[in-house]
Amino acid sequence: MPVDTIDCLRSELDTESGLVGTEIDDLFDRLLLSRDDGRDILFKAMRHAAIGGGKRLRPLLTVAGARLFGIDRDRAVRAGAAIEAIHVYSLIHDDLPCMDDDDVRRGKPTVHKAFGEAAAVLAGDSLHALAFEILADPETHEDPFVRSELVLELARASGPNGMAGGQMMDLAAEGQSLDLAAITRLQQLKTGALIEYAVEAPCIMARLPAEARTPYRGYARNIGLAFQIADDLIDHAGDPHAAGKRTRKDAEAGKATFVSVLGAERAEQQARFLVDQAVEHLAGHGQEADLLRALARFAIERNH
Amino acid sequence: MPVDTIDCLRSELDTESGLVGTEIDDLFDRLLLSRDDGRDILFKAMRHAAIGGGKRLRPLLTVAGARLFGIDRDRAVRAGAAIEAIHVYSLIHDDLPCMDDDDVRRGKPTVHKAFGEAAAVLAGDSLHALAFEILADPETHEDPFVRSELVLELARASGPNGMAGGQMMDLAAEGQSLDLAAITRLQQLKTGALIEYAVEAPCIMARLPAEARTPYRGYARNIGLAFQIADDLIDHAGDPHAAGKRTRKDAEAGKATFVSVLGAERAEQQARFLVDQAVEHLAGHGQEADLLRALARFAIERNH
Repeated sequence: MPVDTIDCLRSELDTESGLVGTEIDDLFDRLLLSRDDGRDILFKAMRHAAIGGGKRLRPLLTVAGARLFGIDRDRAVRAGAAIEAIHVYSLIHDDLPCMDDDDVRRGKPTVHKAFGEAAAVLAGDSLHALAFEILADPETHEDPFVRSELVLELARASGPNGMAGGQMMDLAAEGQSLDLAAITRLQQLKTGALIEYAVEAPCIMARLPAEARTPYRGYARNIGLAFQIADDLIDHAGDPHAAGKRTRKDAEAGKATFVSVLGAERAEQQARFLVDQAVEHLAGHGQEADLLRALARFAIERNH
Repeated sequence: MPVDTIDCLRSELDTESGLVGTEIDDLFDRLLLSRDDGRDILFKAMRHAAIGGGKRLRPLLTVAGARLFGIDRDRAVRAGAAIEAIHVYSLIHDDLPCMDDDDVRRGKPTVHKAFGEAAAVLAGDSLHALAFEILADPETHEDPFVRSELVLELARASGPNGMAGGQMMDLAAEGQSLDLAAITRLQQLKTGALIEYAVEAPCIMARLPAEARTPYRGYARNIGLAFQIADDLIDHAGDPHAAGKRTRKDAEAGKATFVSVLGAERAEQQARFLVDQAVEHLAGHGQEADLLRALARFAIERNH
């Protein structure tokens, strides 16, 4: 690809990323109006975690995927916000002292540091419920079958056979020497399932039959793993300022990662290979898939 | 009502209660098959909390409500299991050291006591997601509009404007002197919203228009408060063996309850009055509402 085309794609991705960030913030701002009846700390804690932070990768994937099928942007943003609500709740609970015990997230104090542990548990639970409230609302899609399928697949992607199950595997893996297959499986549940869902959601909204979703699933699976390897590389590089959170946690906890198993160089090669594979899955599309292509290409350069 | 009719209703309620308990256990048993891949503790923790315990009041309300409209029993049990999954997840999180810090629940060690805090957080999160997975599954209802509405209303009843919001109000109320109106509002969110939903779910499954749901909402609101007063009376009486959990917590935490504000005698009168009101809402129904009537009548005798 010529350099000016790459620069152009990168610039479009940056613009779109900023735009999606603002749209997600605006939606959470409207949905999370503070209540002055003993629940003010709860809503403040939810806003602290959900508004104005993070790379919004998952909503960006949903909005980029929606372009393929001409789905209304506001609806794609709502679906993306539901996914982000799940992601944010999982970060809040993950940061708790009984889990990863982290003090800083997205460059800010974690929710339990700012509002206390009880409020953090409840803010996570509240964002969890909010995700399904957003998806089941007719504003997200006029077809109740689509809403119901959006809910079913998000529940599967985030529950014990998805994200929450992956987090349990991650906890159980401390001090264990996992091989590449085991780490891949763990990450497919812990982070992959929700990233796959972020691309599946626009397919559901476009009423694509299950068999037509295969290339998008393939794209999502590949970039999900590439994102994770990039995250492991950032953690390995150990610059907490660039990461916006504590780094080298995995090494300290004796956790196997893609970097600890493959070494940094092979891990980086593997991430590049996964990105190439991801882009190949989009071969049937023209310009409307450029944002998804750019997302894949620049995914592994995050925070660099 | 003649004494033999009352005895007959009580016996029918006991039979139905045992039956629903078995059906809920069987469903959770099928949905929560343990995985031998690092998630075994997660599934064990979910099973520990969800199977073989509790009064199953909420599913019983759903099954009793389903009788009014001739809804298929297996479907009502599935909806009831989703509500129970939400209830159980809230108990797991509520029992955590950073919340109520309880060691015993339903006569067993709490989940964090038996499996550790991290597994307890994730088991709660997993049951939370499972609830929506159950509701959005076509097995629960063939009409996607019904599934979508079941999800939307459960998300509202359990989120920041329902159960989780009420729990935050409850935490904020420690050491505060709440009046009757404030306690009622708190309880309507904390426990009332989910109990109302347990009766609303069969209305949704019967595709009852919103305006036709008023009496059932009234019934549910009245028994929700009556249940709470009964709970406060049990806590006040202070027999942990009968309660299956630690008692006199509220008094120790300096929390205002219906009993602390009204006194035990007036609280009991108020509960009886609420039960009478609840039963009046069912005046338009014949024998098919007997189970709901029995539930209301015997609600305030729980654990006596």
